[in-house]
Amino acid sequence: MIAITLPDGSVKRVPSGTTPFEIAQSISQGLARNVISASFNNQTIEISTPLVNDGNLILYTWESDEGKQAFWHSSAHILAQALQELYPGIKLTIGPAIENGFYYDIDQGAHSITEKDLKAIEDKMLEIARGKHDFKMREATKEEALDFYRKEGNEYKIELIENLDDKTITFCDHDTFTDLCRGGHIPNTGIVKAVKLTSIAGAYWRGDENNKQLTRIYGISFPKQKELTAYLQLVEEAKKRDHRKLGKELELFTFSQRVGQGLPLWMPKGAALRARLENFLRKAQNKAGYEMVITPHIGHKELFETSGHYEKYGSDSFQPIRTPHEGEEFLLKPMNCPHHCEIYRSKPWSYKDLPVRLAEFGTVYRYEQSGELHGLTRVRGFTQDDAHIFCTADQLDEEFKKVIDLVLYVFGSLGFENFSTQVSLRDPENPDKYIGSMENWEKAEQAIVNAAKSKGLDYKIEYGEAAFYGPKLDFMVKDALGRSWQLGTIQVDYNLPERFELEYIGADNSTHRPIMIHRAPFGSMERFVAILLEHTGGDFPLWLAPNQVSILSLSEKYEKYAKNVLNLLENDEIRALVDNRNETVGKKIRDAELNKIPYTLIVGEQEEKSNTVSVRKRGGENLGSMSISEFAALIQNEIKKELKEF
Amino acid sequence: MIAITLPDGSVKRVPSGTTPFEIAQSISQGLARNVISASFNNQTIEISTPLVNDGNLILYTWESDEGKQAFWHSSAHILAQALQELYPGIKLTIGPAIENGFYYDIDQGAHSITEKDLKAIEDKMLEIARGKHDFKMREATKEEALDFYRKEGNEYKIELIENLDDKTITFCDHDTFTDLCRGGHIPNTGIVKAVKLTSIAGAYWRGDENNKQLTRIYGISFPKQKELTAYLQLVEEAKKRDHRKLGKELELFTFSQRVGQGLPLWMPKGAALRARLENFLRKAQNKAGYEMVITPHIGHKELFETSGHYEKYGSDSFQPIRTPHEGEEFLLKPMNCPHHCEIYRSKPWSYKDLPVRLAEFGTVYRYEQSGELHGLTRVRGFTQDDAHIFCTADQLDEEFKKVIDLVLYVFGSLGFENFSTQVSLRDPENPDKYIGSMENWEKAEQAIVNAAKSKGLDYKIEYGEAAFYGPKLDFMVKDALGRSWQLGTIQVDYNLPERFELEYIGADNSTHRPIMIHRAPFGSMERFVAILLEHTGGDFPLWLAPNQVSILSLSEKYEKYAKNVLNLLENDEIRALVDNRNETVGKKIRDAELNKIPYTLIVGEQEEKSNTVSVRKRGGENLGSMSISEFAALIQNEIKKELKEF
Repeated sequence: MIAITLPDGSVKRVPSGTTPFEIAQSISQGLARNVISASFNNQTIEISTPLVNDGNLILYTWESDEGKQAFWHSSAHILAQALQELYPGIKLTIGPAIENGFYYDIDQGAHSITEKDLKAIEDKMLEIARGKHDFKMREATKEEALDFYRKEGNEYKIELIENLDDKTITFCDHDTFTDLCRGGHIPNTGIVKAVKLTSIAGAYWRGDENNKQLTRIYGISFPKQKELTAYLQLVEEAKKRDHRKLGKELELFTFSQRVGQGLPLWMPKGAALRARLENFLRKAQNKAGYEMVITPHIGHKELFETSGHYEKYGSDSFQPIRTPHEGEEFLLKPMNCPHHCEIYRSKPWSYKDLPVRLAEFGTVYRYEQSGELHGLTRVRGFTQDDAHIFCTADQLDEEFKKVIDLVLYVFGSLGFENFSTQVSLRDPENPDKYIGSMENWEKAEQAIVNAAKSKGLDYKIEYGEAAFYGPKLDFMVKDALGRSWQLGTIQVDYNLPERFELEYIGADNSTHRPIMIHRAPFGSMERFVAILLEHTGGDFPLWLAPNQVSILSLSEKYEKYAKNVLNLLENDEIRALVDNRNETVGKKIRDAELNKIPYTLIVGEQEEKSNTVSVRKRGGENLGSMSISEFAALIQNEIKKELKEF
Repeated sequence: MIAITLPDGSVKRVPSGTTPFEIAQSISQGLARNVISASFNNQTIEISTPLVNDGNLILYTWESDEGKQAFWHSSAHILAQALQELYPGIKLTIGPAIENGFYYDIDQGAHSITEKDLKAIEDKMLEIARGKHDFKMREATKEEALDFYRKEGNEYKIELIENLDDKTITFCDHDTFTDLCRGGHIPNTGIVKAVKLTSIAGAYWRGDENNKQLTRIYGISFPKQKELTAYLQLVEEAKKRDHRKLGKELELFTFSQRVGQGLPLWMPKGAALRARLENFLRKAQNKAGYEMVITPHIGHKELFETSGHYEKYGSDSFQPIRTPHEGEEFLLKPMNCPHHCEIYRSKPWSYKDLPVRLAEFGTVYRYEQSGELHGLTRVRGFTQDDAHIFCTADQLDEEFKKVIDLVLYVFGSLGFENFSTQVSLRDPENPDKYIGSMENWEKAEQAIVNAAKSKGLDYKIEYGEAAFYGPKLDFMVKDALGRSWQLGTIQVDYNLPERFELEYIGADNSTHRPIMIHRAPFGSMERFVAILLEHTGGDFPLWLAPNQVSILSLSEKYEKYAKNVLNLLENDEIRALVDNRNETVGKKIRDAELNKIPYTLIVGEQEEKSNTVSVRKRGGENLGSMSISEFAALIQNEIKKELKEF
C-alpha cells in the first residue's frame, strides 16, 4: 500500500500500482470523466502512470493551466502525425505547448506547405483525433532511440537525444505515430474535438540564425467546438482592441524610427489622457500623505554601484554615458529608488517624521532587444507611478494596508473589477539567500499576508518567489476579454536602506534603519494605458475620455447656440467639442461613435428656444432633452459613480 | 579739420588733434566733468587721445558699462602700483576689469599676502588715487618693451610681449608706475574715490594648471563712497538671497555627489512649488490653444544628425549611449525640438489645422564643465517650459503677439515688473550666413519688431545677433536687487522645418513648409526658480508660497478648533498647516516668519467661541479677527490680484 496525499491534505491509502485515473474514479465519476493530466511530487505524469511510492498527487482538468498544457502538448503530437502522413519525408524537430496552443517545427524537405494547406492538415488532425488513440509512454535505451532516428535520417532528433543526460529515453506512441517525449499527455486523442491551425512561420533550428531555417506551424485545440468558436471570436475582438491600432486611430501615441524603437511619443490626446490618469493618482496620493519629488533621468555610475543595479544589470543595460571631459560616467536610470534614497539622505529624520512617502512619475530607461518590443507594453522607456515609503518595522502593517486601499481605488475607478493577487514569500528551504534579519522578514511577510487577508483580497501564496531583498504582493487584472495582465506591485525592501545606509533616530535616541516599500499601482503609465485600451476597446470611463461630449447643430443657424453650450460645459470642466464640419448630422453621429465620444448633444430650433440640448448616449440610447445644467449634473454624477470612494 | 560724428548722428567739424575731452567740453561742462572714457570708430581710446581722422565718437561716463570698464581697468593699475610699493620684488602679470570690478594676478615671490593685508593695500590705493596722477599712454618698440621687463626680471610680461603681433607696444604710465597696456583709462587716478578689495585666491598663469600658481586679488572701486556702501549692502543682501542657501533652508532642492553634480533633486516642497508654476503656465497655455505632448529623454543619434545638433555640439556633449547588443547609439536630448518635429511628422496637416502648438515640460541634458556649475542657474539637466508653434508665414505676426502676451502674463503674475527685451536680427552685411528665403526673413523680422512695438515693449534691436536659423526676441528681467537675468526667449526657425522636411497642404492644394517658433517664457524651471528665489528672497507671491497659512493655537485646548480651521481652508484649496509643536506662541510666530509663511492665524478661546481667527500678516501687520470664510476670501482676492488677467 502507498499513501497518496491530495491537495486538500487528505491522504488516500491505495495499492502500489494504482493510477491517478483510478484515484480520480475513487473520488467521483465526474472528476474521472474530466481528469486529463496529473502531477506527482511536482513531476508531470500521465493519468495512466502507475504510482508506486508515497507522494503528493494533483489531478488536472481542462480548466487548469496544467490541464491545458497537457492538452496542447498532446495536440502537437497529433499535428506531427498529420504532417507526417500528409507530407512523407518531412523531418520532425520539436513541438511544445505554449501559452495559447502549441506549435511544431519541421524540416519540410522537398515539400512546401503554405497557409492554404492548413485546412487540410486540420482535417487530418481531427480524423486522427476521432480514432481515440491512447497516448502511451515507452522507455528505450539511448542507443535504441538514436537507432530509431538514424533509420529515419532525422538529424534533429539525433542531436536532441545526444544532448540528453538521461540513460533512459522515453517515447510516446499513439496510433501509428511515435515521438521522442518526456510525457505529460491527455489519455487519448479523442478528447481533442476542435482544432485550428493559426499560422505558419519560419523558425531557426534551436533559435540560432546560423542554423537551418525550419517551418513552424502554430495551432490551438479545444475539448469542445464552441470553445474554439469563442476563442476565435476573442482573437478577432482582441485584434480590434489592439492598443497599437487604437492608439493610432485615436491619435494617442506614435513611434518614430528616428527617435528610436520602443520610445513612445505621446501625442496631444494621449498626453492629456495620461495627465488625467496621473492627476487622478496624484490627488489620491496627496490624500494618502504622499509627497511628490522630481529627480533626474540619469545618475552617476557610483549611484548604481551603491544600489547594486550596476553589478547586476549593467552589462545588459544601456551603456554608460561618458562626459567629453573630466572622465565621468553616468547611466540612464532603470529605476527611481536610488534617487529617492539620496533625497531621504539629504536631511536627518526622527521616528516622529516617519513614514515618509516620496512619489514621482519617474521615467526610466531599460534596454530591451528590438525583437521583444511591442507597442506600449514592452518599451525601452516608460514612466513608473513610483513611490517609496520609508517607515519603521512597526508601521509596515498599516502602510501595507494603506497601499492596498490605494491600489483598489485605482482599479475600481478604472473598471478593473476582476483581479487576483500573488504573495511572494521566502523559500523556506533557502533562508540564506535573503538579506535582512529573520525577525524583520517574518514581520514583513506577516504584514503582507495580514493586509491581503484583512482587505479581502483573492490571494495565492508562492513560496520562494520573493526577491532577495524582500517579500512582495503583485496584482494581476483580467481584462474584458479574460486576458490576465500583471499590473501594480508592492514590495518590501531591506536591501537599499542597508546599501544607502539610511537612518532615523528612534524613540530610544539611537539610529535605526528604516524599511522601504516600493509600490506602483499602475506599474507603468505606458503599459497601463495599453491595457486600459485593450480592456475598454477605447471606450474609456467617462471621467477619462479624451472628449466627453460632441455637440452637433442641426444647421448653421444654431452654431452660435452650440458654441454657447460648449462654453457652459467647459465652465463645468466637461471636455466637449462642436463638430461644425460641413457634414450631415447622421455622419457626425457616426463619427462621434467611431471616436468613442460618450455623449452627443444635438441642438436645433427647439433646443435653442427652450435653452436645452437633446442627449444621445454612445451606442444609441436617447435620453431626451434637458437643460444644460441638468446635462452637466448627469455627467458629473456618472463620473462620481465611476470614481470610487477614497 | 576733421568730421566727428556723435551717436545722435550730429557731426562736429574740429581741428585735427582735438581730444574727446575737448569735444565733451564743446557740448556741455556737465558732460566734460563726467566723461571718463571714449571709443572712436569702435576702438576704446583715452579721452586725452588726439583725434586725427574723421570718425564716430562715443563719450562714456561712469553710468555706462564702457565707462565702468575703463574705471575698473584703471583701478587695476592703481592696485598694481600699490602692490609693487608694498611688496617690492613681486612680479605683475595681468590685471583686467571684470563684470563687477577688477583683479590683478601676481607672482608674490618671497611675500605671502593674505586676507588680513587687503585693508593696507586698499589704503595705499586710496593714497595713490588722491595724488590725481594722469594716466598717459606711451608707445615703445617691442625690443624696448622686452628690455624693460628683462631688467625687472618679469618672465610673465616678457612672455606676453613675445606673443604680441604688434610691432609697436604701448605702456601706460601714472605717477611712478608703468604697465604694459592697450589703453582705455579714465583721465586720472583722482576720480577713484572708494575701493574695496573683496577677496584673494589662487589662479594658474594663463589659466593652465600645469603652470605656476599665482595670487589673484579681486577688488571693486567707485567714484563715490556711498556707491561703494550701496554695493556692499547689495552684496550682503544677495548673499542672504542666494538661491542655494534659501533652497536648502526652505527644503526646496538638494544635490548629491552620488547622483551627480549639476543634477538637482527636487525635494517635496520644491517639487510642489514647481508643479504650481507648471500648472499655472499649463492653464494659460491651454487657454492659448497649446496642446501638451510627452517625449522621451533620449533619441537615436540619427535624430540629432537630422536636426544638425550632433554635428554642431556632439563632441562637447554627453557622449552617445550604446546598446549592449544591436549596435544602436542614443543621445540624451539637449533640446525638445527634434522630438516635436517627429510628432508633427506623424500625421498629415492641412493649412486649416495650423497653427499647431505643441508644448512640453521637457527635461534636457547638456554637459557643462564642473567648474561652471552653479546651484540651479547652471546645471547639467534642466526642464524647459518648451513649446513649438508650427504655422504659416502669414500667421507669424499674430502668433508672435500671442506669445508675447503669454510671456507678459507670466512675468506680471510673478512680480517681475522690470524687464527689457532684445530683438536679434540678421547682420545686414552678411546675408549669406542665414538659412531661409529673404522674403521669409523680412516677414519674420518685421513680425517681431511689429509685435514688440504693438505690445509696447522696451526693446533694443541688435543686428547680427540672430541665430543662423532665424531672428529672435529675448526677455531680460531685473530682480529686486537690480541684477539682470536673461529669461524667456521667442525664436523663429526656418532650419528645422527644412531639415525634417515638415509639410502642410496649403489652400492651393500643394505642399508647403511650416515655420517653427520656439518659445519658453520661464526658460528653464530650475533657473527660473533660482531667479525667483533671489528676486523674492523666498517671499513668494501668495499664490505660489509653499505654505500660505500657519495656524497656531494659544493652548492645547484649542487644537481641535485649529484642525477644524485647517480643514475648512483646505476645502478652499488654501495651503495651511497647524503648528502644534510644544513651543511658545512667540517662537511659533518667529518660525512662521523664518519659513516665509505669508499669514499666521492665532486661535484661542475668543476665536473658538466666535468661530473666527486672528490674522497676522508676515512682517507683523495685525489684521484683527474675522470669520474663516472672510479670511479665505481675503486670501483668494489677494491671489486674484497677483495673477494678472489672461
